[in-house]
Amino acid sequence: MAMPTRILRLAMIGGGPGSFIGPVHRMAAGLDGRFALAAGVFSRDPHKSQQAGATFGIDATRVYGDYDELLTLERRRKDPVDVVAIVTPNHLHFPIARAALEKGFAVISDKPATATLVEAQELQRVVERTGGFYALTYTYSGYPLVREARARVAAGEIGAVRKIIVEYSQGWLSERVELTGQRQAQWRCDPAQSGVGGCSGDIGVHAFQLLEFVSGRRVVELCADVSTVVAGRALDDDCNVLLRLDNGAPAVLHATQIGAGERNGLRLRVYGESGAIEWAQESPNRLCIHRPDGTTQIVHAGASALSPAARAVTRLPSGHPEGYVEAFANIYRDVAERLIERGEPTALCGIEVGVRGMAFIECALANSRARAGWSRLTP
Amino acid sequence: MAMPTRILRLAMIGGGPGSFIGPVHRMAAGLDGRFALAAGVFSRDPHKSQQAGATFGIDATRVYGDYDELLTLERRRKDPVDVVAIVTPNHLHFPIARAALEKGFAVISDKPATATLVEAQELQRVVERTGGFYALTYTYSGYPLVREARARVAAGEIGAVRKIIVEYSQGWLSERVELTGQRQAQWRCDPAQSGVGGCSGDIGVHAFQLLEFVSGRRVVELCADVSTVVAGRALDDDCNVLLRLDNGAPAVLHATQIGAGERNGLRLRVYGESGAIEWAQESPNRLCIHRPDGTTQIVHAGASALSPAARAVTRLPSGHPEGYVEAFANIYRDVAERLIERGEPTALCGIEVGVRGMAFIECALANSRARAGWSRLTP
Amino acid sequence: MAMPTRILRLAMIGGGPGSFIGPVHRMAAGLDGRFALAAGVFSRDPHKSQQAGATFGIDATRVYGDYDELLTLERRRKDPVDVVAIVTPNHLHFPIARAALEKGFAVISDKPATATLVEAQELQRVVERTGGFYALTYTYSGYPLVREARARVAAGEIGAVRKIIVEYSQGWLSERVELTGQRQAQWRCDPAQSGVGGCSGDIGVHAFQLLEFVSGRRVVELCADVSTVVAGRALDDDCNVLLRLDNGAPAVLHATQIGAGERNGLRLRVYGESGAIEWAQESPNRLCIHRPDGTTQIVHAGASALSPAARAVTRLPSGHPEGYVEAFANIYRDVAERLIERGEPTALCGIEVGVRGMAFIECALANSRARAGWSRLTP
Amino acid sequence: MAMPTRILRLAMIGGGPGSFIGPVHRMAAGLDGRFALAAGVFSRDPHKSQQAGATFGIDATRVYGDYDELLTLERRRKDPVDVVAIVTPNHLHFPIARAALEKGFAVISDKPATATLVEAQELQRVVERTGGFYALTYTYSGYPLVREARARVAAGEIGAVRKIIVEYSQGWLSERVELTGQRQAQWRCDPAQSGVGGCSGDIGVHAFQLLEFVSGRRVVELCADVSTVVAGRALDDDCNVLLRLDNGAPAVLHATQIGAGERNGLRLRVYGESGAIEWAQESPNRLCIHRPDGTTQIVHAGASALSPAARAVTRLPSGHPEGYVEAFANIYRDVAERLIERGEPTALCGIEVGVRGMAFIECALANSRARAGWSRLTP
Repeated sequence: MAMPTRILRLAMIGGGPGSFIGPVHRMAAGLDGRFALAAGVFSRDPHKSQQAGATFGIDATRVYGDYDELLTLERRRKDPVDVVAIVTPNHLHFPIARAALEKGFAVISDKPATATLVEAQELQRVVERTGGFYALTYTYSGYPLVREARARVAAGEIGAVRKIIVEYSQGWLSERVELTGQRQAQWRCDPAQSGVGGCSGDIGVHAFQLLEFVSGRRVVELCADVSTVVAGRALDDDCNVLLRLDNGAPAVLHATQIGAGERNGLRLRVYGESGAIEWAQESPNRLCIHRPDGTTQIVHAGASALSPAARAVTRLPSGHPEGYVEAFANIYRDVAERLIERGEPTALCGIEVGVRGMAFIECALANSRARAGWSRLTP
Repeated sequence: MAMPTRILRLAMIGGGPGSFIGPVHRMAAGLDGRFALAAGVFSRDPHKSQQAGATFGIDATRVYGDYDELLTLERRRKDPVDVVAIVTPNHLHFPIARAALEKGFAVISDKPATATLVEAQELQRVVERTGGFYALTYTYSGYPLVREARARVAAGEIGAVRKIIVEYSQGWLSERVELTGQRQAQWRCDPAQSGVGGCSGDIGVHAFQLLEFVSGRRVVELCADVSTVVAGRALDDDCNVLLRLDNGAPAVLHATQIGAGERNGLRLRVYGESGAIEWAQESPNRLCIHRPDGTTQIVHAGASALSPAARAVTRLPSGHPEGYVEAFANIYRDVAERLIERGEPTALCGIEVGVRGMAFIECALANSRARAGWSRLTP
Repeated sequence: MAMPTRILRLAMIGGGPGSFIGPVHRMAAGLDGRFALAAGVFSRDPHKSQQAGATFGIDATRVYGDYDELLTLERRRKDPVDVVAIVTPNHLHFPIARAALEKGFAVISDKPATATLVEAQELQRVVERTGGFYALTYTYSGYPLVREARARVAAGEIGAVRKIIVEYSQGWLSERVELTGQRQAQWRCDPAQSGVGGCSGDIGVHAFQLLEFVSGRRVVELCADVSTVVAGRALDDDCNVLLRLDNGAPAVLHATQIGAGERNGLRLRVYGESGAIEWAQESPNRLCIHRPDGTTQIVHAGASALSPAARAVTRLPSGHPEGYVEAFANIYRDVAERLIERGEPTALCGIEVGVRGMAFIECALANSRARAGWSRLTP
Repeated sequence: MAMPTRILRLAMIGGGPGSFIGPVHRMAAGLDGRFALAAGVFSRDPHKSQQAGATFGIDATRVYGDYDELLTLERRRKDPVDVVAIVTPNHLHFPIARAALEKGFAVISDKPATATLVEAQELQRVVERTGGFYALTYTYSGYPLVREARARVAAGEIGAVRKIIVEYSQGWLSERVELTGQRQAQWRCDPAQSGVGGCSGDIGVHAFQLLEFVSGRRVVELCADVSTVVAGRALDDDCNVLLRLDNGAPAVLHATQIGAGERNGLRLRVYGESGAIEWAQESPNRLCIHRPDGTTQIVHAGASALSPAARAVTRLPSGHPEGYVEAFANIYRDVAERLIERGEPTALCGIEVGVRGMAFIECALANSRARAGWSRLTP
């Protein structure tokens, strides 16, 4: 195992009391001892922010009032933070990421990249112009067996891709919990904070990214049925899409937040000429390979049969379950390796993945509204 | 248990050497001792037909040269067959069913009802005109837990239906086995014998029927992507469809025969306001009910918790697996109960289900060709 | 597929109203069209017996008052039955089997062979003396994937056997249902009808047979804890046994009828030097092979990867579930092949398996009572 | 969520390069931000120890040469460590724990408590005499759904306990990997480092603890078959035990390290009068409750249906898998709550659980050697 020469200093924007993804980023950043949380803005309320900072053991002078102050003052220190993690609601991703990049900080942003495609394209120009580091935490691409799936498809284990089914089914918005004060539901169902997409932007885009990440193929056309099932909701909560890949193969993506009884059901199947590969997030430590001879091979996490790509992000022996936080931590680990060892972790998702995700969301929404056939997906 | 007063005499058209569904019908008809195979035309080759008849223990004088002869001569006997089972390739379903009904025989037909919608509509008129008995063997509606699912949805256990996902995934046509002499593939890939649909007509229609059978809802609109993935094949082998139900709820149906490594993967999920119900044909003895409180209830076949509809078609105590033949046999049992005890088994699929299936196939094919948005599904 | 030249005539003793296993034998015998039920004694009550016979379509003159009459009068016919199936409670297995063998009839007997070891040994002498045909319906050895497991172990796929875990868990006797008029519980909990063993004799012996059948090894020593958990019950309802095999390997067998919530949980794992093989009766269409490289191979029923032993007893393509009745029918099919084609189906269980089962039951019971260490299992 | 007032300073003895459990303790201690690794002895080799300390970001002056030095010098600091974590091979658990307790440090020790029962009993006296804090990391009792199982059994959800099956199956010692330089195998197969038990002490004791932890019952008698299956190995690698509980109920415990193809298969079933509860470590986020009406309820991690005991140790919403490190971290969190908030986390395992584990190991080994019946388990 590599000996890290340096622990990266991390600033966090967002992620205070009531946040779901903030604690996840903190656990993920800390898991392998390669990041130390050193500064932050954890809430718009300065008092709450300070309180949270104290809980995390951060020096009070490095808990700031807003992100501008953080960026400005950290820049002046001789031990400034190395990386800024953005874990706010979606509408703030863009301005914070742009400012951080422009001030020379590396950026780790929660997905989706921005609130609109236009913003994402603008952010892409900022990344290119500044030459800065920008990574999106597409959690599910951090799972060892997702990387195993990708490696096996790339190695030709199932032959050319012929069909893909990807789904992301949740049930937590079956009721209008956004009216009950549930903070996660509140901002995710509010166009001003969530951006153009509801279900499509919150989870559909995860499914889309997973499809392209694992298959190595690109979606070129789609025909969508995006709707708001629960009356009164301001954004979509259900999203079903027919797709065509760049090799002509058909695919289906369906996502929902009103699937009562579903928890976090992201599932992928890629069918090739000579077999199929299947993974489900709720049983993340097994990858299934179905073969035409009537057998299914289950590859367990930690197996000696794993590819280097999966072994590199495995912490425990086979049979010792790793989960969501560990997958998330693999993305942080990738960032550390990239920033410190100057390696080239191919699994990291940059701004181009962010642009593509926003393009998917907007294309699906527009196509669904038109109800007039297929749309070309660009860029 | 009811004491049958009479064993029904069955004639079979088709189902000789090389048939898949012929033996299934024979096992199913015989399982509960309510039918006796008494006559048949098992092959176009009279010698093979006689040989097959001998194997089944049928009197040689009742193995006929063609279905016309069978219908004519049986009609003249004083112990004529009661029911004619049609297990030929699809293109013969219509003429045989029509002839049998017109000569006064009850008809059990394999699905799909006919080769085209026009034929199905004509057959519907024949059924109405003759007042004859006509039942389609939609196998999967014979499973006890499919009936349980239907009963529970009808009873409101998951509330109003909000979304449905149904799939039917097979992999046996991943290669062009129709060129290798495999008889099942040969006729199913041949428009002259199979009718207008390939994958859509062979299995897509099963998925469609299951969706409507369990949910009690009707599909009113669809938008389809039907294609031939394996080059050179004459009919479609993949079929993905966005649907809208009569209450506005979205649904997704996807079916394939080129899903390498899949066997007979018919799976259904119905999401309601207060839970979801899930069933998969390859684990037919368990029904899953997902609840918003983060629990899943598995109802095992044979459970004392089952509804009367499921218990009525259960032969064995819980934990003693029943399978495909038993499900098929339940349909035959329904027919016997209908014909002898004059009961009204609501689970039987008549010609109206046949018409609906053909409408689905033709509508999906036409919509997919047009690529111009949604189509209304009628009748 | 072989063309049967002749359909075997079957007589059944027992299996009338209220019987569980009687209908199973009838469905199993009929499934492949190789047996026709021609005679029987279905109840001690002649009226009920006649009524049952009528239901099954049997000529009233061949429904007899008792088994002696059946054997005597059938013997005089010029079309006597070929085989006598014994489906009574255990205490009658021995006298009926002996009488049938002595009168020259082939015998199919439900397990266990007899009520005591002494009876089984006496029956073995009868079989040897008469040279008659005798087969026990150890249901679970009829499952295709049990035969696959056996073939693979024999072929060395997992190397030398090192450990075996076999269990049979049921919950139906968690309450004293034998007091409620439930007929199955009544006779199975009554030493006068069930023989010396309760749980040990009813299901423990199935687990024991499965262990030896699949592994090809023999148990040579055991140390048991057999008990009656539900107060007041006359026979044991729980049975846990440490075993040693003839190659020194350890094994564990545990069985229960008071495992509330269990249905029919027969499960087997055989560990070898280079892998493990696992099968569970409630998911009978999958066989799992665990490998030291961290992968599990699931072999699905009907797979092209199956051995000839499994393919020979497979009726349907992969993905079309076969169940308990089909497994049972495979034993009947074996009998037909043995009696008509004079083949040598190695999977049939003869009287020596019956003797061994009774030896296991009595040895476990005696050892458990003594609580003094290990006992040698003979013969 | 509670605001920690203070982050605990942790010293670690052992856990340097090549350690399996050292990194687990570090990740677990850090996950919730309640411990900071501040000192340690990570290897007998001072250079390696320093190197490791540097990797973990520890001040070089607090990386010590041996545990005595650590305890002595830390005691003199004004910011001494609060807790000493012992993650060495088993033979060092006792002397280090004793020394640490006697110097006034709280102790977190990996299991088993000691190398022998005599040591454990001596350690118990030290704990009592010093009044110090001592906790064993019985990992599996940290899983939320294990705590849920315990809470439900205690609440009477399945009625009085009638039978328990617990197993722990691994395959990693199927070959003599202890000869290949694999460090984990080396010390675990060496009586001088591992103590009296091999499989029995390494994993059998986990199964034993889980049985008592969840059921709330105590084992009072046992009859064991402990053996060394792989020739040449110095300690046992397979362990099968019949047990009786303090209410007379039977139980079975079987554990193995030569179960080729097994990974980390700890599985528990507790049968009660009115249902059964089942949990398996490799699918830790689901708890199954089997009911006599033929249904199984799966309670998913994070469910709103969970008891407070399980919710208290749940970090993520349902459907976001937590794993082995998270379970381990729950024990560390319990320690922090106990030491800082002075709560009384009833799930912590103190020295009395350690004594009991050693008693189990020694009793099973002695009983197995004697082969003479049952032994009373004390203390």
